Amino acid sequence: MIRDDCLEADRNDPLAAHRQQFVLPDDVLYLDGNSLGALPRATAAAVTRVIEQEWGARLIRAWNDAGWMDAPRRVGAKIAKLIGALPHEVLCADSTSINLFKVLATALRLQAERPQVSMRERRVILSERSNFPTDLYITQGLADWLGGRYEIRLVEFSEIAAAIDDSVAVVVLTHVNYRTGAKHSLTPVTYRAQEAGSLMIWDLAHSAGAVPVDLNAARADFAVGCGYKYLNGGPGAPAFLYVADRHQKAMVELRFVQPLSGWMGHRAPFDFASTYEPARDIDRYGVGTPSILALAALECGVDTLLAAGMEAVRAKSVRLTELFLRLVEERCASHGLDLVTPRDASYRGSQVCLAHEHAWPVMQALIARGLIGDFRESREGPGILRFGFAPLYLRFVDVWDAVEALRDVLSTRAWDKPEFQQRKRVT
Amino acid sequence: MIRDDCLEADRNDPLAAHRQQFVLPDDVLYLDGNSLGALPRATAAAVTRVIEQEWGARLIRAWNDAGWMDAPRRVGAKIAKLIGALPHEVLCADSTSINLFKVLATALRLQAERPQVSMRERRVILSERSNFPTDLYITQGLADWLGGRYEIRLVEFSEIAAAIDDSVAVVVLTHVNYRTGAKHSLTPVTYRAQEAGSLMIWDLAHSAGAVPVDLNAARADFAVGCGYKYLNGGPGAPAFLYVADRHQKAMVELRFVQPLSGWMGHRAPFDFASTYEPARDIDRYGVGTPSILALAALECGVDTLLAAGMEAVRAKSVRLTELFLRLVEERCASHGLDLVTPRDASYRGSQVCLAHEHAWPVMQALIARGLIGDFRESREGPGILRFGFAPLYLRFVDVWDAVEALRDVLSTRAWDKPEFQQRKRVT
Repeated sequence: MIRDDCLEADRNDPLAAHRQQFVLPDDVLYLDGNSLGALPRATAAAVTRVIEQEWGARLIRAWNDAGWMDAPRRVGAKIAKLIGALPHEVLCADSTSINLFKVLATALRLQAERPQVSMRERRVILSERSNFPTDLYITQGLADWLGGRYEIRLVEFSEIAAAIDDSVAVVVLTHVNYRTGAKHSLTPVTYRAQEAGSLMIWDLAHSAGAVPVDLNAARADFAVGCGYKYLNGGPGAPAFLYVADRHQKAMVELRFVQPLSGWMGHRAPFDFASTYEPARDIDRYGVGTPSILALAALECGVDTLLAAGMEAVRAKSVRLTELFLRLVEERCASHGLDLVTPRDASYRGSQVCLAHEHAWPVMQALIARGLIGDFRESREGPGILRFGFAPLYLRFVDVWDAVEALRDVLSTRAWDKPEFQQRKRVT
Repeated sequence: MIRDDCLEADRNDPLAAHRQQFVLPDDVLYLDGNSLGALPRATAAAVTRVIEQEWGARLIRAWNDAGWMDAPRRVGAKIAKLIGALPHEVLCADSTSINLFKVLATALRLQAERPQVSMRERRVILSERSNFPTDLYITQGLADWLGGRYEIRLVEFSEIAAAIDDSVAVVVLTHVNYRTGAKHSLTPVTYRAQEAGSLMIWDLAHSAGAVPVDLNAARADFAVGCGYKYLNGGPGAPAFLYVADRHQKAMVELRFVQPLSGWMGHRAPFDFASTYEPARDIDRYGVGTPSILALAALECGVDTLLAAGMEAVRAKSVRLTELFLRLVEERCASHGLDLVTPRDASYRGSQVCLAHEHAWPVMQALIARGLIGDFRESREGPGILRFGFAPLYLRFVDVWDAVEALRDVLSTRAWDKPEFQQRKRVT
């Protein structure tokens, strides 16, 4: 295989034209769309329109006449299409962390109210030791505030299925692991959890917009996800949450209130009643007034994926990661790289992670020459070079050039310079 | 007094030039800056710069090289100048509702850890019946999740001081009431609460940027506030919170964790440790990744106030509301308007509220002719016409014209049309 083969693949790529939806710097190979998605070409104008034509010209009236009130639902319904949910099952709001707090609190309360299939008290919140830290932190924070009633049990990726038993109230997993790229099988794990009487929460941060997700087909209970990675919503974009229709109905029956009961979740916020009464639908997960500028940017990002379709995105994602792996195997052998991500595409998301003894300076050297990936600490052993593949704007030739840059940095030991040793942190 | 006197007052207004900081539609008299502040002229360009020059051109690197990581602290430190706090006592994050949840949880926990001055258990969260609903809702939600340990006691505005006794754990009040414009005396009420052994939380939603607030002089414990009202941060702008330095230190000693323990509040988020360890400073109140676009817009809004100074803002605010009241008294008598706001300027914020039997259609008729104020339900009796006075962009002649519009609508019964009866809701 030569570089021309990659150029040929780009010419035949059905998603090739979608790259035009984005603004990309000329001097960068961007393999970090899983940390911060690239800028859609439509975003600046859309946000400026909200600022000038809506906020500036309409002022407070824009809440009604520019559709601001509906934005969390409207953008949520668009994301629903990407994750196999019904439009009214998804709301855009707050951050992934805060949304996890809401749905975890919901799941624990619903679980406590259910007729139990066994005599054993369900006191365990089960998660993965290598889950994204904020998911663990939020779980710890909530469990702590519930006064020791729940125990958090952390196991390895491969131990999840076996660890689900009738002591488990709720399982909290991230669909695609941020550090390894390994992907859980959403439907079987959900089924396994439910079969054991547990409720299942999926964090889709590294899968929404990268991997086809069908929450309804999996009969998923709850999910949360991130707007600023593959959804291209901009730095710190609003996050989303999904609550299955049947659980929304159960909450109405149980007169259940999620703990972050702010006015946007009230049934009639503009009645200014002094007692909280939750909305009877997904709106109950609203809390404070949402950022309309941030939602406008997120909507542009989500639109880039809707224009392409998730099946096409996944097909190209698999080809990109396969190509990267094959080229690394062919051209970077004997440079001390160890594959962390599953070799079988059906078990990985849209990223490839390689462990290397000098991962930090290697990544700095790559960034210095315009190949932007990410460094992540590993739990033990050497650090990890993380490369994300956003199919809407990455070309096959970019993959070729990325591997060449990696090969060059490793073979010339270009990373072995003092300026690449210093640790700076990025999200 | 005639209209020319108002024009003369504008010519002599030391803040007159500050109106040029804003984009204002020509056909609008905007007396609703307390719902949504007007658009600063700098905002669109600042947000576009973040989008194009930072996100677009720098991508993930902008977290470090464009100052994104520091934005919640940087904007918080600017707000600190407006509310009499130290720079490290204020953080911009999330919404007012969510920030209240964090500081109320903190206050309850700190209170539970304190050596008690009396034998009586402090089980009461005291607030005002007419407090802004989201403050009551969040208090209800948190109390509910703490399993009946706390009782919420709601009293009238005038009963607060008498209701603070040794059963009260925490007092939650809004400095300036959203519906009446009545202003609590921040220092005496804080002192009264602390003297009784309670902790005090102030919601500054209707005072930050409108009224000089000196939290340090009042030795205030906690505060939260809103970015999209007088701070001109745009629709759904990030909110802020204040935690007194002494309480931050106590939290370190007590190894205390606020319940929304997301990764941005971790001591070292990019270590990706699996156990939450809070930052030792105000950063511990961060939760998820903040919206950088929304923070950029908020910073432009805060800058408009810093450029003017709060003393000058307050001086003009008092003159504007006095003028409005005087003109209403002189020119709108016998039209069934009842003053809801305190007549003495030292007991009100920067708004004037007038009850009227037909408040809803009257406000719709005013809006139809370009005078934008707000309608608010009253707890009993007729609805309320609410007029906010943002001194940075309101002119004395606007006040004259507003009162003339009000007089005209009332005297001609222009409000008595079917199209003004229909209820639509705005924030």
